[in-house]
Amino acid sequence: MDFKTIAILGPGLLGGSLALSLRRLCPDVQVHLWGRRRVVIDEIVQNDLVDLASTDLKEVLAKADLVILTTPVGIMQELSLAIRDVGGMASGCIITDVGSVKEPVMQVFDQVFGDTDITCIGSHPMAGSEKMGMAHARDDLFEGACCVLTPPADSSEVEDAKLQALQQFWEKLGMRVRVMPSAEHDCLVARISHLPHLVAAAVVEVAFDGEAKATELAGTGFIDSTRIAAGAPEMWTEILMENRLAVMAELKVLQAQLGDAYAFLEEKDEENLMRFLSDAKGHRDSVAER
Amino acid sequence: MDFKTIAILGPGLLGGSLALSLRRLCPDVQVHLWGRRRVVIDEIVQNDLVDLASTDLKEVLAKADLVILTTPVGIMQELSLAIRDVGGMASGCIITDVGSVKEPVMQVFDQVFGDTDITCIGSHPMAGSEKMGMAHARDDLFEGACCVLTPPADSSEVEDAKLQALQQFWEKLGMRVRVMPSAEHDCLVARISHLPHLVAAAVVEVAFDGEAKATELAGTGFIDSTRIAAGAPEMWTEILMENRLAVMAELKVLQAQLGDAYAFLEEKDEENLMRFLSDAKGHRDSVAER
Repeated sequence: MDFKTIAILGPGLLGGSLALSLRRLCPDVQVHLWGRRRVVIDEIVQNDLVDLASTDLKEVLAKADLVILTTPVGIMQELSLAIRDVGGMASGCIITDVGSVKEPVMQVFDQVFGDTDITCIGSHPMAGSEKMGMAHARDDLFEGACCVLTPPADSSEVEDAKLQALQQFWEKLGMRVRVMPSAEHDCLVARISHLPHLVAAAVVEVAFDGEAKATELAGTGFIDSTRIAAGAPEMWTEILMENRLAVMAELKVLQAQLGDAYAFLEEKDEENLMRFLSDAKGHRDSVAER
Repeated sequence: MDFKTIAILGPGLLGGSLALSLRRLCPDVQVHLWGRRRVVIDEIVQNDLVDLASTDLKEVLAKADLVILTTPVGIMQELSLAIRDVGGMASGCIITDVGSVKEPVMQVFDQVFGDTDITCIGSHPMAGSEKMGMAHARDDLFEGACCVLTPPADSSEVEDAKLQALQQFWEKLGMRVRVMPSAEHDCLVARISHLPHLVAAAVVEVAFDGEAKATELAGTGFIDSTRIAAGAPEMWTEILMENRLAVMAELKVLQAQLGDAYAFLEEKDEENLMRFLSDAKGHRDSVAER
């Protein structure tokens, strides 16, 4: 199943990058883009970035066989209800999103669309930037990155076929796709994304503890290891709160690791400190080499 | 005072990059390079990277008015004693190093050269890479980075003039120079460099806790924030042990920060979590903008 009309709801960094990527990689697809703010939509129209850009949800949803919510997780429920009320999509269309936390999104989808013929599948394209907004959108943002798909539990054959179609869609944008239950996704991203973000912020705050003189000595190590701490606080507060239990669990694991490291230093235990750093290097190298 | 003959002791990433940078930026300076391993020296000679490369310390030190120890901190004492025994440097020469921890180095310098006419000043060029060795040496490694100089306590006018000369030397290589007591240096780098390294290693180990499935989802955020964890375990074990008290103190500050963050999540305290992330973003942006 190839998508003919794709409705992107939310012209932020991800929505904008999706539009630009589709324009480049799938020129035959009709790309519709919905935004709340007139000034943003007007600019998109002026720059002729999509086939249809509008603040009118009905216009944008018309005949869409794939609807992608690229708004913050916090307004997914309100927007989903609006989509259901407005309607007008192609029959049997797929609705997905790009949220960083999937359990809450899948719950909203189930509540709002559970009794319709619409198939809702969660997507988390793990691409982004500490820079936000359409202004930083790129037509190669998704290339080479991983995208996790979270299908509804015990899905039907029809839904399996739609899952395949959605997988092929993200693969066309250059992504490596993984399929897993939303609960598993949320645990894994707590570990690989949400915890590192919280830690980077803490490392920055330690560096600025009291007088900030230490930061005059900042080298590439500090710069790279804290880059994510420049991300949008509103968005990250929302993500961390949505996934708070999983993040709290990983924070405990990290604090245990740091407690061990502290003990190695306190006890001048060079052997175990070296083993700790060697294990970390081996593991980190295995990621970099992929 | 311009240096005529510079003896670099240790052909690693920093020693090699120093040689290449001097060849490019200070072509009139005679560059001597000492190494312990014949095979490394032979290759340097074959590639004509310096004016004199040898495993014979006496040859390399002859007439040197600046001697730079680019070996691991762990063998500074042994090497310093060898320098004192062999001698042959220009009268009133300066000895410095590139070590990441300065208190232990300054103590060794004082013990070994305290009663000579040699002026010992600590240098910490905060440039490097997770890649080690002459093979990764670059002639622009030092450009734009910070270099901390740690002069001996209550230094004389003569020593102040030599400090100026050494400062100008590092500035010629494109570095921003800061001068401070060695004890202050060690506290600041614990915060801006040693702690972030330990934390990056811990974040990697959390990601690989149990099955490593999470790392399939690694994005640029995880890659950047853990890059330093790929550094050489031997070198970092030595650095962290040499500076263990300062690193332990900073670890305690970080654990407190992470404890606060945990509490914000546990109590669903969005306001304080947002403030924490906003402060970190503001601080991080102020570093990036420099």
